[in-house]
Amino acid sequence: MMMKVVLLCVLAATLAFTIGILLGHFAIDKGSSVPDWVRDASRDVDEKIIKTFLDQLDTNQLRENLRELTKVPHMATTAGDEGTVQFLLKRWQDPNTGLDNAWREDYKVYLSFPNKSNPNKVSVVNPENAVLFAAREREKPYKPEQEDPDVVQPFAAYSPAGNVKGKLVYANQGKMSDYELLNKTLDLRGTIAITRYGGAGRSAKAINAAKFGIVGLLVYTDPYEMNDGLVSESDTYPHSWYLPPTGVERGSYSIDFGDLLTPYLAAKDDTYRIPKEDITGIPPIPTQPIGFEDAERLICELDGDNAPDDWQGSLNCTYKLGGPGFKASSSFNNSNVHLDTFNTESLVNSANVMGVIRGSVEPDRYVIYGNHRDSWVHGAIDPSSGTAVMLEITRVLGKMVKEANATLRASASPAAHGVLFTASKQVDAPGTTLSVYDNWLKYSNRTSPNYGIIPNVGFLTGAGSDYAAFMHYLGITSMDISYYYDRTKTKARIYPAYHTAYDTFDYASTYIDPGFTSHQAVARTAGNVLLRLADSLLLPFNCTDYAESLQRYLSEAVTTFESKLAAKGISMESLKKAVKLFSDTANKLDSLIRDSDLANETPLMVRQINDQLMLLDRAFLDPLAFPEQYGFRHVIWASRSSSVPTFPGLADAVEKAEGTGLKEDWDQAHKHLSIVTQAIAGAAHTLDNVI
Amino acid sequence: MMMKVVLLCVLAATLAFTIGILLGHFAIDKGSSVPDWVRDASRDVDEKIIKTFLDQLDTNQLRENLRELTKVPHMATTAGDEGTVQFLLKRWQDPNTGLDNAWREDYKVYLSFPNKSNPNKVSVVNPENAVLFAAREREKPYKPEQEDPDVVQPFAAYSPAGNVKGKLVYANQGKMSDYELLNKTLDLRGTIAITRYGGAGRSAKAINAAKFGIVGLLVYTDPYEMNDGLVSESDTYPHSWYLPPTGVERGSYSIDFGDLLTPYLAAKDDTYRIPKEDITGIPPIPTQPIGFEDAERLICELDGDNAPDDWQGSLNCTYKLGGPGFKASSSFNNSNVHLDTFNTESLVNSANVMGVIRGSVEPDRYVIYGNHRDSWVHGAIDPSSGTAVMLEITRVLGKMVKEANATLRASASPAAHGVLFTASKQVDAPGTTLSVYDNWLKYSNRTSPNYGIIPNVGFLTGAGSDYAAFMHYLGITSMDISYYYDRTKTKARIYPAYHTAYDTFDYASTYIDPGFTSHQAVARTAGNVLLRLADSLLLPFNCTDYAESLQRYLSEAVTTFESKLAAKGISMESLKKAVKLFSDTANKLDSLIRDSDLANETPLMVRQINDQLMLLDRAFLDPLAFPEQYGFRHVIWASRSSSVPTFPGLADAVEKAEGTGLKEDWDQAHKHLSIVTQAIAGAAHTLDNVI
Repeated sequence: MMMKVVLLCVLAATLAFTIGILLGHFAIDKGSSVPDWVRDASRDVDEKIIKTFLDQLDTNQLRENLRELTKVPHMATTAGDEGTVQFLLKRWQDPNTGLDNAWREDYKVYLSFPNKSNPNKVSVVNPENAVLFAAREREKPYKPEQEDPDVVQPFAAYSPAGNVKGKLVYANQGKMSDYELLNKTLDLRGTIAITRYGGAGRSAKAINAAKFGIVGLLVYTDPYEMNDGLVSESDTYPHSWYLPPTGVERGSYSIDFGDLLTPYLAAKDDTYRIPKEDITGIPPIPTQPIGFEDAERLICELDGDNAPDDWQGSLNCTYKLGGPGFKASSSFNNSNVHLDTFNTESLVNSANVMGVIRGSVEPDRYVIYGNHRDSWVHGAIDPSSGTAVMLEITRVLGKMVKEANATLRASASPAAHGVLFTASKQVDAPGTTLSVYDNWLKYSNRTSPNYGIIPNVGFLTGAGSDYAAFMHYLGITSMDISYYYDRTKTKARIYPAYHTAYDTFDYASTYIDPGFTSHQAVARTAGNVLLRLADSLLLPFNCTDYAESLQRYLSEAVTTFESKLAAKGISMESLKKAVKLFSDTANKLDSLIRDSDLANETPLMVRQINDQLMLLDRAFLDPLAFPEQYGFRHVIWASRSSSVPTFPGLADAVEKAEGTGLKEDWDQAHKHLSIVTQAIAGAAHTLDNVI
Repeated sequence: MMMKVVLLCVLAATLAFTIGILLGHFAIDKGSSVPDWVRDASRDVDEKIIKTFLDQLDTNQLRENLRELTKVPHMATTAGDEGTVQFLLKRWQDPNTGLDNAWREDYKVYLSFPNKSNPNKVSVVNPENAVLFAAREREKPYKPEQEDPDVVQPFAAYSPAGNVKGKLVYANQGKMSDYELLNKTLDLRGTIAITRYGGAGRSAKAINAAKFGIVGLLVYTDPYEMNDGLVSESDTYPHSWYLPPTGVERGSYSIDFGDLLTPYLAAKDDTYRIPKEDITGIPPIPTQPIGFEDAERLICELDGDNAPDDWQGSLNCTYKLGGPGFKASSSFNNSNVHLDTFNTESLVNSANVMGVIRGSVEPDRYVIYGNHRDSWVHGAIDPSSGTAVMLEITRVLGKMVKEANATLRASASPAAHGVLFTASKQVDAPGTTLSVYDNWLKYSNRTSPNYGIIPNVGFLTGAGSDYAAFMHYLGITSMDISYYYDRTKTKARIYPAYHTAYDTFDYASTYIDPGFTSHQAVARTAGNVLLRLADSLLLPFNCTDYAESLQRYLSEAVTTFESKLAAKGISMESLKKAVKLFSDTANKLDSLIRDSDLANETPLMVRQINDQLMLLDRAFLDPLAFPEQYGFRHVIWASRSSSVPTFPGLADAVEKAEGTGLKEDWDQAHKHLSIVTQAIAGAAHTLDNVI
């Protein structure tokens, strides 16, 4: 998802639906002298329309969407990508099944590319510089797709070009703690480190490494995390969904989102661009991803102590730390790893495609449905399965508008949990006799003090996520919905072909969703949510569910931090009061909603409550809360480094203060306590009766 | 206005009016089966109610309000101040003429006070430390009010305590350019500077001085700026409105607004407070204000070259720069000025008073009317005349709701110019046969491309203004209305008793507004505006007037900057396009409004347009535009240092870049150009049809 960052920030392939798109049959009996708008203004969502909509979502259409979207590689800004722009425009501008309006928005963005004629090289060279071993420059082809000349060779986007040589060490996941452990017994200066994916963000692995004097970084996918330990060709794609030994996960090695040269501004032609030297959050040293076949050759020849148990993976040897370098018995003895990268950065044109279905009653209110469009290679699952679903939803709306082992997975702002439950109860789970809701409940659930056992909806705290700009920067109540494999049956941290040349239509239609019934289930659930958001008289957002989440965070914060803070003279009482105030006002608003006959209320009253519900997440924004963290303004859902699942500013500040013991760091913890306290109290006031 | 900063940020004495407070007689003929809210939702402002309101505003009530508010000194957080809290609460909680609700909000703020038992001392001491001259520690009493023991002795709030001695220099207004000129011929290190008010902000005079090694600062009011040159007791108060020779202007010597220890947070009891050392924007050296009688003794004895012509004032001598120090012929020869200050800072309790008249149709929409409550001494004009007006307006609303040489003076967001004109046309100007509007037009006007000759309304760009937090930080469309003396008849930069012990009820009722007809005219104009904002079906904000202001700024920017920017390869075309887009969309919205029969439109349509108008100023906020300037987020109206009346970020950045010639500073100019361009384009989109 190299373009995740850029495309999310510039709203790649985002589709905006306005409210009130469909004619309803629900009407209030008012006298004939009543103006038309009186009826319109009190119309609620129409369950018959939802049913019609769900019935029309078609697995064959979904399959053909995916086939078309993935027929060639479509990395951002390439010819294949432009092809998807044209395809989307054609579909959304179709006079019969298109939308009210669709257009492209052009930007100029700073992207990183490998050199097609001079691929990045990873080799083992002896002291005389003879090459003893060279890693593959492309993935092994099993199907014609892998032989497409437009398959981009593996690279770490935003890794600098460079030519470095050094003794190899194995550094686990490239976390700070991993390097610190190595550094206790080894001099890391001048070495090359090999790390596996997971545990730390892509670029963090390189940024951390450079702090210890490491000069180059390799990253590979360990079969332990991705293949449930399977390593042989006969067990992997095309024989199963698992990643072949030569598969390489590409990716954006950048921490920040949005175009890197135009922070906080739209990346238009003549926008001011910061100097390239001022870019932060990208690798300071040459970095290259490789497949596990090559990784095995390197790691299994290492000298040195055995790596700790939790550093071991599924390659066919006991992982060692490195001498640094290779063991005496190896043919690589005394040899260096040589990393030679030729990536270049350039300003390239990039487009979003936007489409609109206009609202009739409140056309100034928007429901946004989106997906990024660009892929690393063919991108059948990431992102094209989502695009295929979006296209099928828009086809059905524009006109009228089965396998076990899979389940719904969703993360959302707490306000939106309820509408997800409502929608998923109305959709059949593929390959089961259960609803999507009941099937989901089986796989992932929690006990809520308000509802008992309910499906577990994740919080939107992911730093590199596709929704980051919407949730963390803009404070738009968001949700992230997908159909996901049963995690009790595989430990794969994500579907194994992720960001590789094997993420193709063939892979998706063979191993992920042969009947396209999962695509259909997602389309039905997401489309159902969409219609409810667009057409409900009152927004289906629940502020008491938000209160419950704040209480969970508070309870964690009190358990973990209260005595530590008290020891520094910092009291959590105001925070407790603020959460209590939030809960009380949320309950009050909830009662007001339940006790009102909204269909017969003035539409201004309904709109007032809708404002309160719609803007609730916005009330948690504080642009000054995280001055060092680009793009984080939501004081509840901003990503945190701390593993304590609670208010991020507070958790990270306390963790830092505990580490340093400095008065100024405890002051910062106090400051974050004040920030989150006042944000929650302020949000509570927005739910309260007007003064 | 010492508390201006704090009180504005914490909304001192702010009164919030909600929309739709009065019953109207305007009704639409709809069938009898129409729900009540259909009629309510389309009701417009009632001109009969405005007339009734205007007639009831009473000069006697205004006089008694002012008398009560000014009977004792009421500096922020003193007993006198608490008395005004009680008085306001009593009035607003009165069952017959009170508001729907009124209450106090308590804060804990960081304030600076002199030491009552050990006043600050300014003296001339000879080399043996014998005191040759001592400045007055209190103003000379002419009326009993000046003998009130609660008159705070003159001081510079937030000046540090300190004891410094040095040769005296005269530094004009304490601008950087003033010290730079002095520094060409004199070694300023270890000197004490005397400066006059005006030209630079209060604390800037001291911050600038410290950069040249100056160790102490005196500030006085020159009779040239304040008294039209009059210096003798017989020409000044109590014989006229002019400042007596011993009068001293007090004031807050702080650049920032809001409580200095809790930036961006509410100053509640347990809020995190920054270390005192981290406070910026206050004097780094002891600073003290004195009267011009004492200033004359010091300045007229100075040695050295004659000061430049534009540094001369109205004291009875030719101003010299200082040797440094006094001339040989003076009895002060070889003597130092000794400045000994004893100010202390403390955390003190402070309250706002809030009152509300609830709205019936859209109670979630607010019109805010406010004034600060605290004064430096008795504060008859500043701020009590404003409080008296507010109380009379609320009395009349709660119940039912003549001198020449004075005129309305107003600054406002351009969106609100029109409603000011409408309201001022309906009020008679005291002592004339003209309306307030026509009288205003006589004194201050400009030629508008849209309207021809109209009264000149100032822009809200004042850094230390009472409205700064609302306009510059929150982006709330604001206006600042007062009745002001005829500036063609006096050069006084403000009424002469400003911030002194002579700003009393006696002064106000003798020299400023004997018949309280100016108070009444302001009450009528402001109250009229208030009713129109609260009751109009469509907010009386005009976006084409905003466009005209942007065009004025653009035209100035093009004239002054375009060739300079072009020489650095920076084009202004996008800015021109953005302003054009804003004008076009504003005209479109304006036509839509004119062509619609809004009383028969859905209230959701009306509310949509009201949202566009109400939130227009908010669309110009960019919390990251001015990272070094506390509290500035509005990219059009933020204060600027540059004297070029145009977009502040751009003007200041170009001025800096021209000074340094550095590439990085021209880059910043480019960045500010992008920021203001995208803000204007973004604001234009909010006025446009929904997508």
